[in-house]
Amino acid sequence: MRLSLSCLTKPIIHGYFRSSCSWRVRIAFALKGIAFDQVPVNLIKDGGQQFTEQYKGLNPMQQVPAVQIDGIMLSQSLAVIQYIEETRTGHRLLPADPKKRAQVRMISDFIASGIQPVQNLYVLQKMGAEKVQWAHHFIQRGFEALEPILKETAGKYCVGDEISMADICLVPQVYNAERFKVDVDQFPTIKRLNQTLLKVDAFKESHPSCQLDTPAEICT
Amino acid sequence: MRLSLSCLTKPIIHGYFRSSCSWRVRIAFALKGIAFDQVPVNLIKDGGQQFTEQYKGLNPMQQVPAVQIDGIMLSQSLAVIQYIEETRTGHRLLPADPKKRAQVRMISDFIASGIQPVQNLYVLQKMGAEKVQWAHHFIQRGFEALEPILKETAGKYCVGDEISMADICLVPQVYNAERFKVDVDQFPTIKRLNQTLLKVDAFKESHPSCQLDTPAEICT
Repeated sequence: MRLSLSCLTKPIIHGYFRSSCSWRVRIAFALKGIAFDQVPVNLIKDGGQQFTEQYKGLNPMQQVPAVQIDGIMLSQSLAVIQYIEETRTGHRLLPADPKKRAQVRMISDFIASGIQPVQNLYVLQKMGAEKVQWAHHFIQRGFEALEPILKETAGKYCVGDEISMADICLVPQVYNAERFKVDVDQFPTIKRLNQTLLKVDAFKESHPSCQLDTPAEICT
Repeated sequence: MRLSLSCLTKPIIHGYFRSSCSWRVRIAFALKGIAFDQVPVNLIKDGGQQFTEQYKGLNPMQQVPAVQIDGIMLSQSLAVIQYIEETRTGHRLLPADPKKRAQVRMISDFIASGIQPVQNLYVLQKMGAEKVQWAHHFIQRGFEALEPILKETAGKYCVGDEISMADICLVPQVYNAERFKVDVDQFPTIKRLNQTLLKVDAFKESHPSCQLDTPAEICT
C-alpha cells in the first residue's frame, strides 16, 4: 500500500494572529475539526515578514494566510475554506440549497472584497495619518449595506440557522470594526449575530486574543 | 401543472458597460449560453445612478452588478457566477478536480479581493488627483504576484486547458490595467492568456466596447 505524504501531515497555516483572513481560516478548520499547525508571519516586525524573499517564494501574493494542504499551497481565505468544504466531512460550511449557498457567498464576498481589502494593513500603511478615518469610513459604509441584507437572510446565524462561511467572514470584520471605533450598536442584526457567534467554541479558540503569536500584553 | 414565474423570465443584469464585475457576469452568462436582459446603471451620470434610493432598494451594496434570477436578487459577481454554475448545465466554469477548483478560486479571489476593490471607482473618487497613480500601483503590484502563480497553473487558459472563472476575472482586470497604463508586456503569461481569451466569442460579445450602454464615441 502506498500512502501519500499529504495524508499523513497536518495542514500548516502561515498566518498572523490579528489578520482577519487568517482568523477566517482558523475558524473554518476548527468548525470542521481539522487539526493544523501554525507558522506565524509577523506583518509588522522588520517591516513585515510577508515581504521576505522566503515568504514570497511560498506565496507570491505576500499576504496571509497561506495554507499548505494535501501537497499544494493555497492562499485566499475563501478559496481555502471552500477547498476544505469540498474535500472534508464535518460541519457544512455552505448550505445545501443553491439559493442559500449563493446568499452565503454574496455576504462572504461583500466582506472579503467590498470591505476588508480597502481597510487592510497594506492600504492603511499607504494612507498615512488618515488611516483610522479611512478604515472607519469604509467599514461604516460596508456595514450600512450589510445590515439590511442580513436582516433579510439571517435566522440564528447570517443565513438561516446554520453556521456558514458568511459567519466566518462576519466575526473577524466586526473585530476590525471595533478596532477602528465603528459603533456596532448602530447595526442590531450584525451586533446580535456577532455576540451569538463569539460564544461558539470554534470562534473562541481561533480568536486573535489567544493565538501562538499573540503578544503577551494583549493575551486574554 | 404549476409553472414558477422565475422559470419563464430571463435573468436581468443591472450593470454598467465598463464595470469589470459586470463584465465578469456577462462573460459567465455567455459561456453558459444563458439569455439575459440588461438594465444599465450609469455609475458616472448624475453623481452615480447606483446611489439612488431606487437602486439601493434593489441592492443595498450600491454596486453593480445586481442580478435578478430565479426569483432572488444576487450581487457580488463571483457569487452570481457560482450560482449559475451550480444551477445550470453548459460550459463548466470550475474544474471537476478539487485542487484545480481551489486554484481557480484562489486566482479569482486574488483579482476580485486583492486587486479590483482597491482600484474601483468609489475608491478612486476618494483619491482625487492621485487616482491614476494609485490604481497603477495596485494593479502593477497585483500582476507581479499573479504572473508567477499563473505561470505555474496555466495551460491554454489560467488553470489548465479549460476556460474557468479565473479567466472570467483575468480579462476584465487586464482591461483595467490598460486603462491605467500598466505595461502588460512585463507579464508574458498574463498577456498571452488575455490575447487568447479575447478571441473567444463569450469574451468578445460581452466586451465593454459593444454593450447597450456603451457611449457611441467609444463603440467599436
